[in-house]
Amino acid sequence: MLELRLVQGSLLKKVLEAIRDLVTEANFDCSGTGFSLQAMDSSHVALVALLLRAEGFEHYRCDRNLSMGMNLNNMAKMLRCAGNEDIITIKADDGSDTVTFMFESPKQDKIADFEMKLMDIDSEHLGIPDSEYQAIVRMPSAEFMRICKDLSSIGDTVVISVTKEGVKFSTSGDIGSANIVCRQNQTVDKPEEATIIEMQEPVSLTFALRYMNSFTKASTLSDQVTISLSSELPVVVEYKIAEMGYIRFYLAPKIEEDEEMKP
Amino acid sequence: MLELRLVQGSLLKKVLEAIRDLVTEANFDCSGTGFSLQAMDSSHVALVALLLRAEGFEHYRCDRNLSMGMNLNNMAKMLRCAGNEDIITIKADDGSDTVTFMFESPKQDKIADFEMKLMDIDSEHLGIPDSEYQAIVRMPSAEFMRICKDLSSIGDTVVISVTKEGVKFSTSGDIGSANIVCRQNQTVDKPEEATIIEMQEPVSLTFALRYMNSFTKASTLSDQVTISLSSELPVVVEYKIAEMGYIRFYLAPKIEEDEEMKP
Amino acid sequence: MLELRLVQGSLLKKVLEAIRDLVTEANFDCSGTGFSLQAMDSSHVALVALLLRAEGFEHYRCDRNLSMGMNLNNMAKMLRCAGNEDIITIKADDGSDTVTFMFESPKQDKIADFEMKLMDIDSEHLGIPDSEYQAIVRMPSAEFMRICKDLSSIGDTVVISVTKEGVKFSTSGDIGSANIVCRQNQTVDKPEEATIIEMQEPVSLTFALRYMNSFTKASTLSDQVTISLSSELPVVVEYKIAEMGYIRFYLAPKIEEDEEMKP
Repeated sequence: MLELRLVQGSLLKKVLEAIRDLVTEANFDCSGTGFSLQAMDSSHVALVALLLRAEGFEHYRCDRNLSMGMNLNNMAKMLRCAGNEDIITIKADDGSDTVTFMFESPKQDKIADFEMKLMDIDSEHLGIPDSEYQAIVRMPSAEFMRICKDLSSIGDTVVISVTKEGVKFSTSGDIGSANIVCRQNQTVDKPEEATIIEMQEPVSLTFALRYMNSFTKASTLSDQVTISLSSELPVVVEYKIAEMGYIRFYLAPKIEEDEEMKP
Repeated sequence: MLELRLVQGSLLKKVLEAIRDLVTEANFDCSGTGFSLQAMDSSHVALVALLLRAEGFEHYRCDRNLSMGMNLNNMAKMLRCAGNEDIITIKADDGSDTVTFMFESPKQDKIADFEMKLMDIDSEHLGIPDSEYQAIVRMPSAEFMRICKDLSSIGDTVVISVTKEGVKFSTSGDIGSANIVCRQNQTVDKPEEATIIEMQEPVSLTFALRYMNSFTKASTLSDQVTISLSSELPVVVEYKIAEMGYIRFYLAPKIEEDEEMKP
Repeated sequence: MLELRLVQGSLLKKVLEAIRDLVTEANFDCSGTGFSLQAMDSSHVALVALLLRAEGFEHYRCDRNLSMGMNLNNMAKMLRCAGNEDIITIKADDGSDTVTFMFESPKQDKIADFEMKLMDIDSEHLGIPDSEYQAIVRMPSAEFMRICKDLSSIGDTVVISVTKEGVKFSTSGDIGSANIVCRQNQTVDKPEEATIIEMQEPVSLTFALRYMNSFTKASTLSDQVTISLSSELPVVVEYKIAEMGYIRFYLAPKIEEDEEMKP
């Protein structure tokens, strides 16, 4: 039996909205340690990994490991029916082909049960090794979202270049070109507005803006985003989920101009 | 001659927006006692009844009974031109084929006259007898609107079941099923948030969500909605209009699964 | 070389949004006195004239007169990437076929360069003589915008009639007719809400609402609009740009009913 009670239910709503643009069907994996998901997007170019640790739930009961295949659009339809202040409980019986989302209003005067059919989804779990990165940029998530959106009106790809002084985002297209430079900036009084660069060596990599824009849907989950870059590795775009875990997006850099993404 | 002056003109704008989704053409009836309307929706399934009592107007002159056929979409186009703080006066000369809506800004520095052509509309006035209901639910109108909208993302019909403890709204569809229970809740300090159930006997009835969603457009008129249920009668969904009257919507329950509505 | 630094960069964003509905390609003219534009709309019915005086810029360098042909939709795409608090600098090298827009965030921690290709646009500069007008109406720009929008839901043209008492806007269409009268109103404590009429003789002229609605996109630039009317002249709809200049729109009145506009 599975019963996960999350007082801050709006977190789960935000998680789903963050993922849903990229992935439409996925297995959620429950174990004693937490509630997680790993999935490729439909074109098998980007990978998303979610972790919500058991400790972050008010009540967490998972008698045995369980993998639940869900249609994320249907799940989103149900979660949108939860109020932003509601407590959400995820429930499933062993061997059942349904999952139940229970929403309780803060005053307990409204209780909703939404039961959703599960589905069988083939998936293989990729082991993602811990890696060293040439450069790690931490910056306001709203700023990163704005930059990706702005550059999309000019071009299709973004070149992210990191030096000691700052990080530069560049694009070009039919109507012209654009460069946006964010300088390192450790504002002491407002840590959520800081831009901090940890650099081993300068790095410059090209990515499809379409995916970056999808990743930034997770900006509602965290004030800050961390972008980890190395020439030989997929970029990691990470949004921490306070006291619970993270959403991480992985995307391989484009190699040479106009060449297709390699897995 | 007809001249009805309504200081809180925004009321009339809200009334029209509440009805317009259901009815596109209707006769407004003026008499010495008030300004009223009764109309079936285009598929002859739901009935709407509006009453604005004469006492609610700042000035109310109606020399003889008058029935004015109006296209509600055109009327809405005109009323949308009134500011939310404007005083609205409805004027018609005896025998005229037009009606005039006059909008006065609070400071009287802007005066608008909108003249609309009337139309001939066949209609029969149904006598609606006062009835006893098995259960009457009074609840926040915003809550009822939210529930109808939420359930619409799962199914097409709603089963409303009333017991002493509360009222349950249920639906099911391809992707799963949902139950929302609102408990009786007489919050003393905020009467507009109360959920109050007056029950003679338990009742459970099924309705088309499409119509319920239309009815909830009237939520702007009142903080509370009253739902009166009996197995042999159409449900009445009523929104009071402060100190002036009401909008009431009538809808026959669905009898057995998948069967069409009976008049 | 050209370098124009505008501290209140949002002004340039608003100017562009004000013009873009009417004109898609235009030459911006730079001289020692200011940054200006004059263009006809694509159907050659309306004329727009913009002036931003050199004194209004924090830094203004224009070594020699320059005319830069720009696609306003592309320019708008780039300017939308500037934050509302950003400082905008327009740069061009002599003989270059590109222009650069630089956006600096208030804290100087984000610097963006957007480079846009210029284009060759044929245009002739019309000399617009100063004229005497029969009536000049100054009124809140938001009010004028609202009136044009409201009347558009009834008819296609507006008759503007000025008398000593006020200004009347009238239209009619299939569903009826409308008259909106704004009275002269010199509110002393809130000059931006004043309606002031300077009249030599009464005047009544008819205009296409479609163009008037386009002109009102400039309402974000100024609290007040000035409408100058004479039977023999195009109307001038002017929005002042604080301490910098203006946007003026010119439109010939419609002569007799249903007749086409004459140049």
